[in-house]
Amino acid sequence: MYKLYDFMPSGNGYKIRLLLNQLNIDYQRVDIDILQQQSRMPEFLQINPNGKIPVLEHDGLYLAESNAILWYLAKGTDFLPPGDFEQAQVLQWMFFEQFSHEPYIAKSRYWISILHAEAQYREQLAVLKPQGYAALGVMEGHLADDSFIVGDCYSIADIALYAYTHVAAEGGYDLSSYPNIQRWFNRIESQPDYIRIETVPL
Amino acid sequence: MYKLYDFMPSGNGYKIRLLLNQLNIDYQRVDIDILQQQSRMPEFLQINPNGKIPVLEHDGLYLAESNAILWYLAKGTDFLPPGDFEQAQVLQWMFFEQFSHEPYIAKSRYWISILHAEAQYREQLAVLKPQGYAALGVMEGHLADDSFIVGDCYSIADIALYAYTHVAAEGGYDLSSYPNIQRWFNRIESQPDYIRIETVPL
Repeated sequence: MYKLYDFMPSGNGYKIRLLLNQLNIDYQRVDIDILQQQSRMPEFLQINPNGKIPVLEHDGLYLAESNAILWYLAKGTDFLPPGDFEQAQVLQWMFFEQFSHEPYIAKSRYWISILHAEAQYREQLAVLKPQGYAALGVMEGHLADDSFIVGDCYSIADIALYAYTHVAAEGGYDLSSYPNIQRWFNRIESQPDYIRIETVPL
Repeated sequence: MYKLYDFMPSGNGYKIRLLLNQLNIDYQRVDIDILQQQSRMPEFLQINPNGKIPVLEHDGLYLAESNAILWYLAKGTDFLPPGDFEQAQVLQWMFFEQFSHEPYIAKSRYWISILHAEAQYREQLAVLKPQGYAALGVMEGHLADDSFIVGDCYSIADIALYAYTHVAAEGGYDLSSYPNIQRWFNRIESQPDYIRIETVPL
């Protein structure tokens, strides 16, 4: 049995919920309210000393970092391409997501739409915005061929980047001039067993 | 033949130089002077639209993101443990490095010791410092058993975290109260074919 330590508004948590649903894997979801500092409590720090959700528990072992969890679950499935170079490309885009995308786009969304503190963070938001748009520009160029992030197949690289990109407007980003990204949203949202970020698992 | 687009002071570039040396792989190093904006020139953006080094070229294909390159090179070698869960743990720590460590420790080093602009960035440095120390604290706790980052063997997870941790002092971090990290440095520096960050390949 899998157990997922999760926070519903989190795009990082959603990545795992989406893949688990598409893999038809049953799991127990444990809500960790990060707004109440529950991910910083001693009992949670035993699970992940870095104090962040999501964490996947499986057979008594704990795995942190959303993209590492995606990899672990996708290994040997159609959600991870089989070739060594394609797998490295999947990782390339997942590292791009964590270093060049998430710190700008997800953080803006967190301040604006989760903490509801846009005024308080106005200066920092202005600093983040160009770098968030730069990441979106890289994606827009890459998706010009109407395909998926790596090759012709939907993979965990798409899940990793979709999670925060599709809610970028909640961080103040305007995607109207990013048609390739919008068409890619449509391709992802038409995948079997797709669920929305707000879908609470049964 | 491998070609590495690289910048000598970069810890991310060093990760690849160190692993290539330990794998005894010949390669050509192409210097991209990021201080001269060479990673933002049109010809380089053809290679990596995200405008960052390192990039590995192999058989006409390009791979970006240092930790994805480490993975690609280490696959099937002793530098990547064979089990699925251990491999996922390697990724967990590499994502930790890119999200929770590098943005604080490497960026401080860049401002202080590469741009020589400590005074200009004094405020930002003060903001980064507690988060950099938090990452070091997570590592210090994890390394308490005198082992390596994942299991009992030296792997690319160690290389990924060593690259910027061992030069953290250049970013204003004091490691004197992190004895586990310091002993781990010694274990890494005694590995066969270890090279220092400033070692220019022949």
